[in-house]
Amino acid sequence: MRAKLVVAYEGSGFRGFACNEGVRTVMAVLSEAVETVVRVPVTLIGAGRTDAGVHAWGQVVSGELPDHVDLGQLVRRVSKLCSPAIAVRSAEWVADDFDARFSALWRHYRYDVWNAPFPNPLVGGRAWWVAHPLDVPAMGAGCEPIIGEHDFSSFCRRVKVGVDEPEKSRVRRVISADWANADGDATMVRFEIRANAFCHQMVRSIVGTLVDIGLGRIASDQMAAILAARSRDAAGRVAPPDGLTLWEVGYPV
Amino acid sequence: MRAKLVVAYEGSGFRGFACNEGVRTVMAVLSEAVETVVRVPVTLIGAGRTDAGVHAWGQVVSGELPDHVDLGQLVRRVSKLCSPAIAVRSAEWVADDFDARFSALWRHYRYDVWNAPFPNPLVGGRAWWVAHPLDVPAMGAGCEPIIGEHDFSSFCRRVKVGVDEPEKSRVRRVISADWANADGDATMVRFEIRANAFCHQMVRSIVGTLVDIGLGRIASDQMAAILAARSRDAAGRVAPPDGLTLWEVGYPV
Repeated sequence: MRAKLVVAYEGSGFRGFACNEGVRTVMAVLSEAVETVVRVPVTLIGAGRTDAGVHAWGQVVSGELPDHVDLGQLVRRVSKLCSPAIAVRSAEWVADDFDARFSALWRHYRYDVWNAPFPNPLVGGRAWWVAHPLDVPAMGAGCEPIIGEHDFSSFCRRVKVGVDEPEKSRVRRVISADWANADGDATMVRFEIRANAFCHQMVRSIVGTLVDIGLGRIASDQMAAILAARSRDAAGRVAPPDGLTLWEVGYPV
Repeated sequence: MRAKLVVAYEGSGFRGFACNEGVRTVMAVLSEAVETVVRVPVTLIGAGRTDAGVHAWGQVVSGELPDHVDLGQLVRRVSKLCSPAIAVRSAEWVADDFDARFSALWRHYRYDVWNAPFPNPLVGGRAWWVAHPLDVPAMGAGCEPIIGEHDFSSFCRRVKVGVDEPEKSRVRRVISADWANADGDATMVRFEIRANAFCHQMVRSIVGTLVDIGLGRIASDQMAAILAARSRDAAGRVAPPDGLTLWEVGYPV
């Protein structure tokens, strides 16, 4: 039967999410643990391919598991086998046509920036340290042009068109995007973005550009022009993976 | 001149705070970095000797530094040398009689418990995972008897009296102690305690006993009797170091 797993992980120790011959990825470690528990080979599909160093709180994984599997036991045993970097938060049986990737309606990412003159050892590996004070309202204003359906080529990893990804559309629909001070703490600045889907490095490219706006390196009213340019050269830098977490994936209810 | 440094650290990679021949401690790494920057030997005193695996946000360190030292530069250079596990948050010149340990009026510790059926990889090493649901109001009620001045022998590490610590008083004054759900998140339960000083393992012993109350293993009205027993045998277990952070140290203004 088809199963849906909600998975959290600390990405620092992994070479990304998706299976990749010869390197330690989240999916490789997770699949091996699931196979150890269910004692048959399994093929798992993830909702979002997070990069090396990117974390997840609500990554979703689906696949066929033998009908007799006790999902409560699976949650506990797989979490134990994958501890402490990966945990299964929940597992449930779903309809046969459920696919973690293709059934997803939206993905929600968080990006945390630690904005203080000194680094914060207590959020090491899970926030980007920016020492100079950020203009958070300007960064919020910079979010407005990206909301809606747009071609996000300016914020996608450069690819050799016709070689790496021929014909692929860069059109995505951003449902919401904004900055706020997290947990009432003026030194932790959090970006939240929800979209139907994301291109490769899209969140990190948007964050890098918005942080450049927050530092006054780019004017916030330039964001619309950067988006319209449909060229990676127009945007700012790519933020490091550390601050990024795949927070939640939405499906039809 | 006398300098006061406020220091944060992620304690997972250290064998405790205080210098200890041949092992990697926070103070050993910090002192070496300070000496590298100021180019003379320094003797630093810390406000609280945190155990192996215990973290700090507001540890305070004092010592004599050459008058010509640029404290702003010291903060940046020491943080860089100690990155990412230790950071200096601030440094300032203080009166000659200031002593991080003996001038302190109170210490404030935080202890975080992740209370969910599954572990949380995103707080790994910085919270104690308790899988069974905790009765937080009962844990709060269990805090009441410890507030005020008491002999905390029941919550101090057992020592061979007359050998390890002859004559030492276990009387401490707890100013406040309570549990709350942190950051509005029902799965993260936070203990905050402020006292003039703490005996060795006192916070972890109190947390371990209060969590046993939260699990129904000890009745919350037993806390007064456990304290009155003045015996380590009366209390519950010692909570792991992971969840503990020395949050702030108070001095006369």
